[in-house]
Parts: sequence; structure tokens; C-alpha cells
Amino acid sequence: MDLKQVAKDTAKVLASYLTYQSVRMVVAQLSETNPPLAIWLNDFSTKAKIQDGEAYIQELLRENQDLGFRIMTVREYLAHDVTEYLPEMVSTGIQQANMEHRRQHLERTTQLNWSVPSSNPETSIDSEPNLDNLSS
Amino acid sequence: MDLKQVAKDTAKVLASYLTYQSVRMVVAQLSETNPPLAIWLNDFSTKAKIQDGEAYIQELLRENQDLGFRIMTVREYLAHDVTEYLPEMVSTGIQQANMEHRRQHLERTTQLNWSVPSSNPETSIDSEPNLDNLSS
Repeated sequence: MDLKQVAKDTAKVLASYLTYQSVRMVVAQLSETNPPLAIWLNDFSTKAKIQDGEAYIQELLRENQDLGFRIMTVREYLAHDVTEYLPEMVSTGIQQANMEHRRQHLERTTQLNWSVPSSNPETSIDSEPNLDNLSS
Repeated sequence: MDLKQVAKDTAKVLASYLTYQSVRMVVAQLSETNPPLAIWLNDFSTKAKIQDGEAYIQELLRENQDLGFRIMTVREYLAHDVTEYLPEMVSTGIQQANMEHRRQHLERTTQLNWSVPSSNPETSIDSEPNLDNLSS
């Protein structure tokens, strides 16, 4: 397993996601101060375009330099303020989700197993171990 | 700006991405040890399905419990080993990318400004300030 490559790919995906979040923030701010520009930026920022954060910024700088710089500033700020909490949040989140999946799966398979004897109660009683033997 | 919500959303996206990377790892391992199962897992793990890591795991556990548990173990390991480097990598990555965008943009706009006088050299010389006046 090439962990270095996984880390690099993950960092790139994360940078693009933070660029997307920055765009959402700037669109929200503009919708208060300059609604037509908010609509323009929203239309410009299609899902396909924003998938690659760097190509998106490059294109935006050509179309509207001020918005490009503004989004770059916001994402730098997000990268600093949000990422420091991520290792703890993601590790704990995955651990808890895994635990919950295991619990649900156990519950499901146990119910399946229980449903077999319960459909025939006599067999179920017969198949119980004879505990009296333990004391002898 | 609701930074807490952004952090939560980012952690969720990251958990799903690490689930996707875990699936890729397990498919790679299986293609060595059990090629038919590798093909099955690859076919099962469509892009649409893996978009939500938790729903994906839940469905996989129903179809193939062992693979579900295996991927859960790998993603827990990735969450622990990969995420600790992310804050530094993403912050530095975004800072460097922003710097590069600013440099390229400056270069482009400077070239545009220079191209105007150079298209008419005489005007360019005429428009220069008369430095002789400075000494008087």
C-alpha cells in the first residue's frame, strides 16, 4: 500500500472540496451585498468545473479577477482553520461508524439465527445443553 | 460563516473518500489472491454507490460480510495513518497553489499592459515622464 500516494491524493481532493466550500461562502456573502454577482458566480461555478479546484480558480481569475482572489483568500483561511480538527474528527467518525455497522450487522445476523429455532419451539428447547451435567 | 458545519461536512466527505481508497486497496490485494472476487468487488463498488461511504458499507455487509469488515478495518487504519499529515499538506498545498495563481495572473496582466505600448513604440516613448525635469 502506497500510503504517501493516498495522502497526496486525499490532500488534493480536500483542497478542491475547500475551494468548493469557499465558493459557497462567497456566493452567500454576495447574495446579501450584490445579488446579480452572486447569481453570476453561482452559474459560473458548475459542479464539473469545480471538481478540479486549481483549474476552476485559473478560469475564474480570467473572468473576474476580484472574485478569484477573494475565493483564494477564503480557502486559505479555511485550510488553516478547518483542517486542524479533521484528523480527530475523521478518525473518531470512522471508528464510531464502524462500531455502529458491526452492531447493526450482529443484530441482523442474530435475529436471523434466532428466527430459525423460534419457528419450531420444541426443537429449540431440545437443542439446549443439559446444564445438570455440569455439576456432576 | 459556520465553520463548525463546514468542518463537519468536510469530515464526512473525507470519510467517504477514505472508504473509496480502502476499496481500491482491497481490490488491488484481491486481484493478486482472488481475481474473481476482485472483479465482483470492483463491479459492486460503483461510483454512485461509494459516494456515501456509510450506505455503501451497509449494503456491502449484506452482500459479503467478510469484505465489508475488511474494508472497515482498512479505512480505520487509513483514517489513523493518513489524516495526521493532512492539515500541513492541505495548508501548504493551498498556499503554494494560491501563490502560483497570483504569479501567473500577474504575469498575464503585465504582458497585456506591456503589449499595448509595444504595439506603438513612438507613443510609448512619448508617454515616458521627462526625467530632466526632476533635477530642476
